[in-house]
Amino acid sequence: MSRPYNFGAGPAMFAQEVLEQAQRELLNWRNTGMSVMEISHHSAESKALIAELQQDLRELLAIPSNYQILLCSMPARAQYAFLPMNVLAQGESADYVETGIWSKKAYIEAKRYADVHSVASSESDGFMSIPHPSQWQINPQARYLHYCDNETITGVEFAQVPDVDGTVHLACDMTSNFLSRPIDVKHYAVIYAGAQKNVAPAALTMVIIRDDFLTTTGALTPEVGNYQAMAEANSLVYTPNLFACYIASLTCKWIKRMGGIDAIAERNQIQAQRVYDLIDNSDFYFNPVAPIYRSRMNITFRLARPELESTFLSEADKAGLLQLKGHRFVGGMRASLYNSMPNEGVDALCQFMHQFEKQFC
Amino acid sequence: MSRPYNFGAGPAMFAQEVLEQAQRELLNWRNTGMSVMEISHHSAESKALIAELQQDLRELLAIPSNYQILLCSMPARAQYAFLPMNVLAQGESADYVETGIWSKKAYIEAKRYADVHSVASSESDGFMSIPHPSQWQINPQARYLHYCDNETITGVEFAQVPDVDGTVHLACDMTSNFLSRPIDVKHYAVIYAGAQKNVAPAALTMVIIRDDFLTTTGALTPEVGNYQAMAEANSLVYTPNLFACYIASLTCKWIKRMGGIDAIAERNQIQAQRVYDLIDNSDFYFNPVAPIYRSRMNITFRLARPELESTFLSEADKAGLLQLKGHRFVGGMRASLYNSMPNEGVDALCQFMHQFEKQFC
Repeated sequence: MSRPYNFGAGPAMFAQEVLEQAQRELLNWRNTGMSVMEISHHSAESKALIAELQQDLRELLAIPSNYQILLCSMPARAQYAFLPMNVLAQGESADYVETGIWSKKAYIEAKRYADVHSVASSESDGFMSIPHPSQWQINPQARYLHYCDNETITGVEFAQVPDVDGTVHLACDMTSNFLSRPIDVKHYAVIYAGAQKNVAPAALTMVIIRDDFLTTTGALTPEVGNYQAMAEANSLVYTPNLFACYIASLTCKWIKRMGGIDAIAERNQIQAQRVYDLIDNSDFYFNPVAPIYRSRMNITFRLARPELESTFLSEADKAGLLQLKGHRFVGGMRASLYNSMPNEGVDALCQFMHQFEKQFC
Repeated sequence: MSRPYNFGAGPAMFAQEVLEQAQRELLNWRNTGMSVMEISHHSAESKALIAELQQDLRELLAIPSNYQILLCSMPARAQYAFLPMNVLAQGESADYVETGIWSKKAYIEAKRYADVHSVASSESDGFMSIPHPSQWQINPQARYLHYCDNETITGVEFAQVPDVDGTVHLACDMTSNFLSRPIDVKHYAVIYAGAQKNVAPAALTMVIIRDDFLTTTGALTPEVGNYQAMAEANSLVYTPNLFACYIASLTCKWIKRMGGIDAIAERNQIQAQRVYDLIDNSDFYFNPVAPIYRSRMNITFRLARPELESTFLSEADKAGLLQLKGHRFVGGMRASLYNSMPNEGVDALCQFMHQFEKQFC
């Protein structure tokens, strides 16, 4: 059976060679005679794996030495609560930018724990754009400004670091575009990302945090979410999701073999552009997001004849192009092109879209 | 290479046939052409897997229909905070019994969020026993009484449900003996258990909760830890650790093939008794825990000549008997005999212990 192309917004495809290596080693990892799932987190092998993963992430993203890499065995969404709980001392506030469902959820959750403020929102246009940073009502006293780099549901992504540098400490949710392009880490105080798009299976979140943000811990932070404790214990506060760390480590090595983050970023850019070009050159498909806000990871689109959408999806399914249905909040279609999507998958998608248009327009 | 026997306290061994099935299916799960790690949590396949796992747990443990089974993708220790956060309304309190490091940690964490009280502790004898329930200073107004069914570090386990029924609602951490014997679930309001001993890889915690305990949610509970929300969304509040659910499901089916929970419990009892008998019939080995408190899962022991301990461990390692070192808090040795330890592993351990004694006593 040939592998279908999975355009789901996450959990997402893995590179086939990552899965094949995991399969080969599943009962005997690194000559231990055991599965990586059976290895004690206090063993030398486990500690070596964690150190290796941290080093690979550091190299791939050029993470400076004054940042810690915490490997948290829980959903990224836990950070919506744990970030303000950890970082905000009594009397401190934080600013939030809302550019989609995820950053809005982050803001709402933070509000339950701290004095946080929404300083910009694109909700009035259905989260189809990003308010220009010059319009953000930033409080210069805020401890940090939080935003989400890529919103999977409407398919909106920051093209670069927002131009507020020097005035605020940035905290960023990069769950859905982590490792998809270079990051200039020094612009950030905190970056966090769930693994299940570009990195590893779910229940692993990487938190990259600058040392000066490790100094405060609110009295409310649960032990499992305490950044300081995680940094001091090198992420071994509790039994970690070592299997996900292992897959993440295989993924990092695959990215290196692909030429590194720059090469991956270029491939992602070209793949996304091909699909957007097809959409823009057609009267049959359309995407309501202005090009400067468009996501390279999640390409949303509609049909000019919406009554054909369910036919589109079922025909795509038959052609081995899976999970193209848009999120229920916005409807329509969505093609997620994470790192592991091969060029052949984009070929097949474009070919299918052309043929479907020819057949029905 | 033959598989070594892993006596670690967790992550622990898996049954070989569970690993072999996972290996076979890793790139093509249930004829989807995809890995289970790549499957959308909103897909029919994923929902079927979750329902199947819940049903298997329900059958194996005879969980009544007025209990929900929540699958939480995080460490069990998160429940130390989330249990009081969820369950205690303003003005309510809870009681805690301390019989080891884990139940003590649960108490200390809960204290940060709620009015909780330690009503019994065996700390004065190094957590080598369990205070008799008749001595517990139970508050009849407490919302629940929390205890830990099996303490991995000192190797102390409740032989049965503590005899306080009818007066209090029990909340129990069963992380390290879950699925190792039948549970009379109706005695409990809440049972929770991390997966990494008897069930699945780490970063999955099962919370079994009676409906009447789902009615209160403290204002502080993070969204990812909200029991009500998890119950309403059938554990899909966030992207779940589907891979761990999958392995848990394979484990449940393996337990059924082994004859069910009663058969597993009998095997566990016999295995543990063999090692305890060897220890008790020897002047070379000893275990300070009185038989009625001894754990069937984690057998701690010392050598009469402690200077031989490091030799014991290195010789055991060479013989393929791994992870026998005791927890750093108590030292000595510890043989963890979770469900997946084959009888041949216990044969090999007993043989090794006899030979080592003969050589050095």
